[in-house]
Amino acid sequence: MGAPATGDEAWMAAAARLALRARPLCRPNPGVGALLLSEGERPRVMARGWTRESGRPHAEAIALEAFAGGGAKGMTLHVTLEPCAHASKRGPACCDVVADAAPARVVIGQRDPDPRTAGEGIARLERAGIDVALLDDAASAASLADYLTLRRLGRPRVTLKLALSLDGCIALADGTSQWITGDEARAHVHAMRARHDAILVGGGTWRADRPRLDVRLRGLEERSPQRLVLTRGVKPDGVTVVNEPADIADLDGVLSVYVEGGAGAASAFLEADLVDELHLYRAPIVIGDGLRALGSLGLDGPDGLEHAHGRWRRSYCCQLGSDSFTAYQRVR
Amino acid sequence: MGAPATGDEAWMAAAARLALRARPLCRPNPGVGALLLSEGERPRVMARGWTRESGRPHAEAIALEAFAGGGAKGMTLHVTLEPCAHASKRGPACCDVVADAAPARVVIGQRDPDPRTAGEGIARLERAGIDVALLDDAASAASLADYLTLRRLGRPRVTLKLALSLDGCIALADGTSQWITGDEARAHVHAMRARHDAILVGGGTWRADRPRLDVRLRGLEERSPQRLVLTRGVKPDGVTVVNEPADIADLDGVLSVYVEGGAGAASAFLEADLVDELHLYRAPIVIGDGLRALGSLGLDGPDGLEHAHGRWRRSYCCQLGSDSFTAYQRVR
Ligand SMILES: NC(=O)c1ccc[n+]([C@@H]2O[C@H](COP(=O)([O-])OP(=O)(O)OC[C@H]3O[C@@H](n4cnc5c(N)ncnc54)[C@H](OP(=O)(O)O)[C@@H]3O)[C@@H](O)[C@H]2O)c1
Ligand SMILES: NC(=O)c1ccc[n+]([C@@H]2O[C@H](COP(=O)([O-])OP(=O)(O)OC[C@H]3O[C@@H](n4cnc5c(N)ncnc54)[C@H](OP(=O)(O)O)[C@@H]3O)[C@@H](O)[C@H]2O)c1
Repeated sequence: MGAPATGDEAWMAAAARLALRARPLCRPNPGVGALLLSEGERPRVMARGWTRESGRPHAEAIALEAFAGGGAKGMTLHVTLEPCAHASKRGPACCDVVADAAPARVVIGQRDPDPRTAGEGIARLERAGIDVALLDDAASAASLADYLTLRRLGRPRVTLKLALSLDGCIALADGTSQWITGDEARAHVHAMRARHDAILVGGGTWRADRPRLDVRLRGLEERSPQRLVLTRGVKPDGVTVVNEPADIADLDGVLSVYVEGGAGAASAFLEADLVDELHLYRAPIVIGDGLRALGSLGLDGPDGLEHAHGRWRRSYCCQLGSDSFTAYQRVR
Repeated sequence: MGAPATGDEAWMAAAARLALRARPLCRPNPGVGALLLSEGERPRVMARGWTRESGRPHAEAIALEAFAGGGAKGMTLHVTLEPCAHASKRGPACCDVVADAAPARVVIGQRDPDPRTAGEGIARLERAGIDVALLDDAASAASLADYLTLRRLGRPRVTLKLALSLDGCIALADGTSQWITGDEARAHVHAMRARHDAILVGGGTWRADRPRLDVRLRGLEERSPQRLVLTRGVKPDGVTVVNEPADIADLDGVLSVYVEGGAGAASAFLEADLVDELHLYRAPIVIGDGLRALGSLGLDGPDGLEHAHGRWRRSYCCQLGSDSFTAYQRVR
């Protein structure tokens, strides 16, 4: 395999930003980004592509549309995920599409863990005489996080959202919780819902609030994710039931689950170590003895605090009106 | 009075940064900064000054040391606080010192609310033929926050520190709390202790932990603030007793109080609306059903949440190792 070159990482970051445009329309396929660069010291972008609605065409096929039959000679293709090695009735294998366009070099952000590809895409490109570099780069991994989690851990990626006061309450002691956070934070939550394949609440929240769990953002109304309820009881109408947190592994076509509470569901997912990302919305208010976001996580005992440390890394932070938003990633 | 000119604010910000050097040595006097600029379009800094140990000499006197008897002719003096109009046995009134040096212009960050000065300093400068501009600028106000709080609200400025998990706990359910935050956060707390005139804990924390409440930073060991315990009970040895939060107004020479907990003391100060600044240290850990930072603040009822909103404004945020530090100011 070829070595990475100066500039590869910056171009790949650009490809990863393109990949973000694919979601949520490409659901349930991973959102991939591709960038075709001209030859030479100061390359120009010749074409771009990202995964289209329902997952086809793939990003490389879009970027190379006008370059079939050796049209990409001398050029470099950056693609966030290894080109697939399996044809489907919806199109040929991407590594063959790329080989046909014949760029001099292909730079890949992440290897595809799908057993049908898993290195076979790279091997076929090399057999076609193309120089291939594999980066294992962070921007590609972040843009493919849901897909990589499903492939590596065998279950959808889980984001837990909590909306808290500065001192960690989700409501006053008497249950009043409208509103802790402001309009901007709530709009942000709707955008996050749209990015996920499914939204989950616990049976308690379902019975208490009968939440709509839809996406109330213009243009995305049709993109509301699947609705899940965590319950050991009878299935409510219009939702999919999850009997215990680990059962999310059995959901079909779901790469990502957004857990919106309440305390019981949030704690169950945390205790099972099934949360990959924590999204904290914090309002600049102090409540005191209000209701808490979480119940027991089984952390007691002398090693409790040691066990709690080293699991979360802050990855992003911004202001949303007067509230703050902070994302943490589970370190695995 | 003269109008502010272009550049005044930037120079005043520089003077306010100088003022920060005065603390904690100038205790219990306010820390003031002064900057003397040459005449002309592109002024040079001719001299600088900040309040010295125990409050004397004042910043203006230091900056003008080499400019007595009209030596500052044509120059501009920037000073964060109105020059004092009252002589003391430790030195003459600053407005007279300034008048003697005779700069063309004096720019003042904040009017001095001390009744012995309160505009009289400005009046005397103007009577001496000096052009005076009063800015009411934010950087000066921030550097003088303790002093201005004492003068305006008749009590020291109060900072409440809380060290929390992401979900707002201060310890595991069984009380284990060593350690929530890391070394960098703890060093930051010691630097904050050094900046305050007094540190307060509740009687519960005093009895449980017998905290040293000193400053364990090299070179600042001698600067440990006064130690206060909030209790209705008998006075422990070696500390000053505060019987209820409002009694901090009676402390002598104390411009700032750093409240370090526990839950009872923190809640008592918040409920009395005596907290001016909140300092939150957050460790990237999740605890669940641990101990809470606060008790009841009397916020229940239908207007509870409305009452909680609009009181705090985020003013500063940084990372300390893997912990985050966020400061909030009470909006009054
Ligand atoms: N401010 C906010 O951000 C926010 C967000 C969401 C909810 N809330 C509030 O939180 C309250 C509800 O919280 P909650 O803690 O009572 O309810 P919850 O977390 O919504 O639901 C608890 C229920 O989840 C199911 N469950 C929990 N752990 C499970 C496990 N390991 N396996 C299978 N099922 C499991 C059980 O359902 P079954 O009993 O059906 O078996 C349990 O009763 C509501 O008042 C709601 O308004 C606030
Ligand atoms: N992780 C952290 O950041 C942190 C920081 C500090 C403390 N802690 C922990 O917190 C625990 C102690 O917390 P706590 O809430 O029990 O105790 P606390 O807040 O330290 O003290 C409570 C006591 O303060 C006095 N008090 C409270 N309100 C008052 C009022 N309005 N007027 C007069 N006095 C008043 C009373 O003292 P009297 O009973 O003496 O009259 C009361 O018993 C300890 O275990 C300590 O280790 C943790």
